[in-house]
Amino acid sequence: MNVYRQLETRFARLSALSDAEMHLHWDQSVMMPPKGAEARGEQLAALKAVCHGMITAPDMGELIDKAESETGLDDWQAANLREMKRQWVHAAALSEEQVEALSRAVTACETKWREARDENNYESVRPLLQTVLDIIRECAEAKSARLGLAPYDALLDEYSPGVTEAMIDEVFGTLETFLPDFLPDVMQKQAQGPKPLMPEGPFPADKQRQLGVEMMARLGFDFNSGRLDESLHPFSSGTPDDLRITTRYDEDDFAFGLMGVLHETGHALYDHGLPKKWRGQPVGSHLGMDIHESQSLLVEMQACRSPEFLRFAAPVMRDTFGGSGPAWTEENIIRLYSWIEPGLIRVDADEVTYPAHVILRYNLERDMIAGRLALADLPEAWNAGMQKLLGITPPDDALGCMQDIHWFDGAWGYFPSYTLGAIAGAQLFDAAKKTDPEIMPSIAQGNFSPLLAWLRENVHSHGRRYPSPELLTRATGRPLDVTAFTSHLRTRYIG
Amino acid sequence: MNVYRQLETRFARLSALSDAEMHLHWDQSVMMPPKGAEARGEQLAALKAVCHGMITAPDMGELIDKAESETGLDDWQAANLREMKRQWVHAAALSEEQVEALSRAVTACETKWREARDENNYESVRPLLQTVLDIIRECAEAKSARLGLAPYDALLDEYSPGVTEAMIDEVFGTLETFLPDFLPDVMQKQAQGPKPLMPEGPFPADKQRQLGVEMMARLGFDFNSGRLDESLHPFSSGTPDDLRITTRYDEDDFAFGLMGVLHETGHALYDHGLPKKWRGQPVGSHLGMDIHESQSLLVEMQACRSPEFLRFAAPVMRDTFGGSGPAWTEENIIRLYSWIEPGLIRVDADEVTYPAHVILRYNLERDMIAGRLALADLPEAWNAGMQKLLGITPPDDALGCMQDIHWFDGAWGYFPSYTLGAIAGAQLFDAAKKTDPEIMPSIAQGNFSPLLAWLRENVHSHGRRYPSPELLTRATGRPLDVTAFTSHLRTRYIG
Repeated sequence: MNVYRQLETRFARLSALSDAEMHLHWDQSVMMPPKGAEARGEQLAALKAVCHGMITAPDMGELIDKAESETGLDDWQAANLREMKRQWVHAAALSEEQVEALSRAVTACETKWREARDENNYESVRPLLQTVLDIIRECAEAKSARLGLAPYDALLDEYSPGVTEAMIDEVFGTLETFLPDFLPDVMQKQAQGPKPLMPEGPFPADKQRQLGVEMMARLGFDFNSGRLDESLHPFSSGTPDDLRITTRYDEDDFAFGLMGVLHETGHALYDHGLPKKWRGQPVGSHLGMDIHESQSLLVEMQACRSPEFLRFAAPVMRDTFGGSGPAWTEENIIRLYSWIEPGLIRVDADEVTYPAHVILRYNLERDMIAGRLALADLPEAWNAGMQKLLGITPPDDALGCMQDIHWFDGAWGYFPSYTLGAIAGAQLFDAAKKTDPEIMPSIAQGNFSPLLAWLRENVHSHGRRYPSPELLTRATGRPLDVTAFTSHLRTRYIG
Repeated sequence: MNVYRQLETRFARLSALSDAEMHLHWDQSVMMPPKGAEARGEQLAALKAVCHGMITAPDMGELIDKAESETGLDDWQAANLREMKRQWVHAAALSEEQVEALSRAVTACETKWREARDENNYESVRPLLQTVLDIIRECAEAKSARLGLAPYDALLDEYSPGVTEAMIDEVFGTLETFLPDFLPDVMQKQAQGPKPLMPEGPFPADKQRQLGVEMMARLGFDFNSGRLDESLHPFSSGTPDDLRITTRYDEDDFAFGLMGVLHETGHALYDHGLPKKWRGQPVGSHLGMDIHESQSLLVEMQACRSPEFLRFAAPVMRDTFGGSGPAWTEENIIRLYSWIEPGLIRVDADEVTYPAHVILRYNLERDMIAGRLALADLPEAWNAGMQKLLGITPPDDALGCMQDIHWFDGAWGYFPSYTLGAIAGAQLFDAAKKTDPEIMPSIAQGNFSPLLAWLRENVHSHGRRYPSPELLTRATGRPLDVTAFTSHLRTRYIG
């Protein structure tokens, strides 16, 4: 196992350097003064170049080949080698010219996109988006050959390893039939009750933070291994023992900040629970964006928006802000946090309509990658899809096909992970509750330990030992399907 | 200039990576949760290894040789090449084994030192300190050969380029005769007046911060290019457009935190004023720890502890904390901030007794490097020196030769920079006041613009274009000497 050991040393260094890079990104979003941007750009570019040089070192492919023929690797080591190879293939499939061309195209396109969105002028950014798409298609082809996957699957593999178009078609296809029937039922049911009341602010940021910290501690977040800060968009970052989560405090609506905290805590708990023995090795990493999102949505949507937990949380909220009156009753808070309202914007969507946003983007990006949909036709296709899936049509492209940064930023193959995560989160939560009947009664008392113990054992501690379909089967008895998710939606919204 | 250009590209990348490393150190001291230490250690070690590999690349010496024979370099470029060579010589003089051995020895020794100091047991750390000293002497020999300098000069060159033992002997020698006569005069003069009163707290941290921020803004600190945070020991770090300074707030004594802010702001203003055109290149860097310290001490000791400024600042302090009574009068504040009291601890020393602490350490470390003083005899030599220079003898080694981290941490040749900085700071401030008579009247109104303009023009904007003796001569008309410093002390403390 001499060669395998050599690879472990290299990947440990690579992981340390890419952790450093991630940390500088955190600082940029949370701490950095504005004029620091230029120097930070240089630091990030230098780190990226060093990491790329290290992973695509001329002898890397040979070392991996040799290690594959060594004997004596245990299961974890074999899985580690498989994941080393995946990282290497993704990096080495692209020439240095392609990496640079993509980086330049994405920077130009993303900058222009901000302007184009503000001015509602899709045509002004279309040529730059075309360049990005052309390079992404080239990259997809290059990776396709090396990975033995279809081009779109090769893109998916970067964000959600092991997931394929065929798997997505099956689950999204079922949802695509389910949702258009289900949504009117929900709206009708919802209309029978009163509209929820918004608690009245202002809610001072320091009180919101105090509430967030209290809930994080209940969820099992260890403040010796992480921090809570503020940034424009909530996110989770850091290393397993140094987790940095952020949120934003709206003084008129504390739900935004709190739900951000709960969601990001779900991400952080996953990273914190990754196998300690494999820190810094590819197999010690999380399973991909789909499974990462399953953990944040499980915590936010399944556990923390449950009536059981909200009945516990409502009085805590009331006490924190000194609220009183009908807006602060348990029943109103439950109603408020499970209110459904179809809208144009994905990031504002509730859990019933969110999948429609993702399915739309998945259908479109798959067609664009396959060359079946031209960028000139994107706005029309977008609007038709919104009408079909949610019954509404965007008044303009700023609220339509230009709302998300992803395509303009080069993240093709990323969108599906949101809804794959929602589905996997529901399936995992369902299995957890069935295995341990104490989970829901504990959550009703603000105690997440039984849930966290189950997640640690069945998800977090496995790192990348198993591909995600196998992990799901081991944890829930079957591969990904939508039954737990749709049945959760039925129970919560129809009853 | 093709080869020179190649070197510029390499050093720009190197600078970006070492900026990244510096930033991770800042985060470690200011933001990082405790359990993040292990992963951070990996990140820093990886970055250090990458940087060392880059600067000692096999072809680096050849490239530098070739660039030296290229024609067409202007003054700045030639100075840049000279500084590239200095960096390379310092790094390449040591074998990888030496670098590793030093790093291991220092880690072990520093850890043991904390324990030994707590237990007042010098003998327990002496063997580890001996290992560090042996390796440092080896490194000094290796660098000596390459730099054409005596071994101790080679150590000095890393922290204060261009400074030699002979130069230090001259200025420290003069001080060593001056201080023992001067100190009793100061104490006698001081005893004729009343003892200053301490304003009574508590002084809430947020108010202290507000006062610090106000004073930083007056000094010319740009908060779009930097931040003020808290850490156990005040320090200044960051890149010229992203400066991070820290202080610590003692709720019983706001002077500690405030003077920390003023001192560190002096450092930050220097970095911010470095030549924009040469960002990321060796010639765009500061001149060394001696000149860096001259800038912080000029701001703190010369400008901000002047009676002129304190008369302006006292009412601001009073208003910030809502103070009243005799402790808050201008005259009491002036007296309080220029109080002299010989003591055992360097970091608590006033500006009159501080040089004695440094001279003691300089004499001892020079003798240890030369092999004239054995570690077994260090405690005795320390105590004798303290008695001779300040008339006091430490009761134990914890308050004696074990008080500072420097030797245990491998920083030999660093101590002189503190007092070289104090002397240079006095000389520069004196020259500035003579050139621009508006400087003191402006400071008396809380306006540092004329002072900052002079420093920008005469010190900051030159980066490393000139070696420090030449910079001082250009800025003040003569090389470093103690006359401005001793005359400043006479004026302030004898009148």
